[in-house]
Amino acid sequence: MRLYSFELSPYAARARLAVYRKGLDVEIVEPPEGGPAGEAYRAINPLGKVPALVLDDGTVIPESAVIVEYLEDRFPTPALLPRAPEDRARARLIARVAELYLMPALHPLFEQFFAEPRDRAKVEAGIAGVRKALDQLEHFAAGDGWAAGPDFSLADCALMPVMFAVTGVLGGFGESEPLRGQPRLDAYWRRIQDDPAVARVTAEMKAGLAKLMASRR
Amino acid sequence: MRLYSFELSPYAARARLAVYRKGLDVEIVEPPEGGPAGEAYRAINPLGKVPALVLDDGTVIPESAVIVEYLEDRFPTPALLPRAPEDRARARLIARVAELYLMPALHPLFEQFFAEPRDRAKVEAGIAGVRKALDQLEHFAAGDGWAAGPDFSLADCALMPVMFAVTGVLGGFGESEPLRGQPRLDAYWRRIQDDPAVARVTAEMKAGLAKLMASRR
Repeated sequence: MRLYSFELSPYAARARLAVYRKGLDVEIVEPPEGGPAGEAYRAINPLGKVPALVLDDGTVIPESAVIVEYLEDRFPTPALLPRAPEDRARARLIARVAELYLMPALHPLFEQFFAEPRDRAKVEAGIAGVRKALDQLEHFAAGDGWAAGPDFSLADCALMPVMFAVTGVLGGFGESEPLRGQPRLDAYWRRIQDDPAVARVTAEMKAGLAKLMASRR
Repeated sequence: MRLYSFELSPYAARARLAVYRKGLDVEIVEPPEGGPAGEAYRAINPLGKVPALVLDDGTVIPESAVIVEYLEDRFPTPALLPRAPEDRARARLIARVAELYLMPALHPLFEQFFAEPRDRAKVEAGIAGVRKALDQLEHFAAGDGWAAGPDFSLADCALMPVMFAVTGVLGGFGESEPLRGQPRLDAYWRRIQDDPAVARVTAEMKAGLAKLMASRR
């Protein structure tokens, strides 16, 4: 299998974290010349986004959420979902809130990060939007263990890369304790750093970030 | 179980279609006084959106995609997912493209629908955006049967209400054959109208639309 990916993309990182936790043999590459919106890549994934998983028979599976569920269906051990339907729902919910509420709340801050001069009102509104989404996530997150309960799950695959982005961006705007209002998420974020797969994805995202920052200088 | 729902919401309709196809006993109600953003409902679902499914023990499951997967896990017959991992991925992908690419592409047109006067450039850009998303969906849709293959699946739960919205909105802007460029989706949309659960959700969405139009007069 081949995974189209960018180091810094939290969506690609979500798929990579699932791949690493399951110990799968997957070739990880960037989109071909022209980038994700280019003609060559759109012939592979018409949605024009990373990640996309290409199976050995050529079948293309786009969208990080779909890729992770596919890997779980196809390679069920080690599991990325608990057994009980209610626990599975909680894991999927946390993944969705991370992807569709928290991550989009960062976009106004991404824009302001490189803006000269920064618009203070937009920065403050952006930080407030991120805090609101963090509060929503805090409501659903487990109090100990992994994001959705005692075991690593697809909730962690989705949440970990977004937390990397959130803490990095809020830190970049001078928030020294970015999770001070969300004690569950704060403890979670500290707790998971030593996991080898999490550490590997963190290192990849840091490398991607360093390249981005160098390109903007 | 209780489902918080609005007749016209394509997200709530997605959950209702799963409930009807599975023949489940679910009480369907609107959010309490104050609406989905109000305090009473936010105490139930902090995301402030319909649908939300409340289980008999009080557990709340928000987000239509999560609700449908939960119903599938908890009440597996009749199934809303095929057996093969690749087929399951296709069903989930179509559901996602309908929800996250096609439905958001309608928003600029919703705004213009009640605008006086309408902004012709925005209408044209809006229609082009919807056509682009329809093309993406056309790429992944099955050529016959249901949205993702021979059997009804959670792809249909997500796609049917969005198709109701797309054909209605494009029709409202004078597009007499809104799916002329997407023959698979066009044939699909005609083919599924006689299914009892589809017809029921269609009637509910029409009733919701009639109320909306009356309130705008």
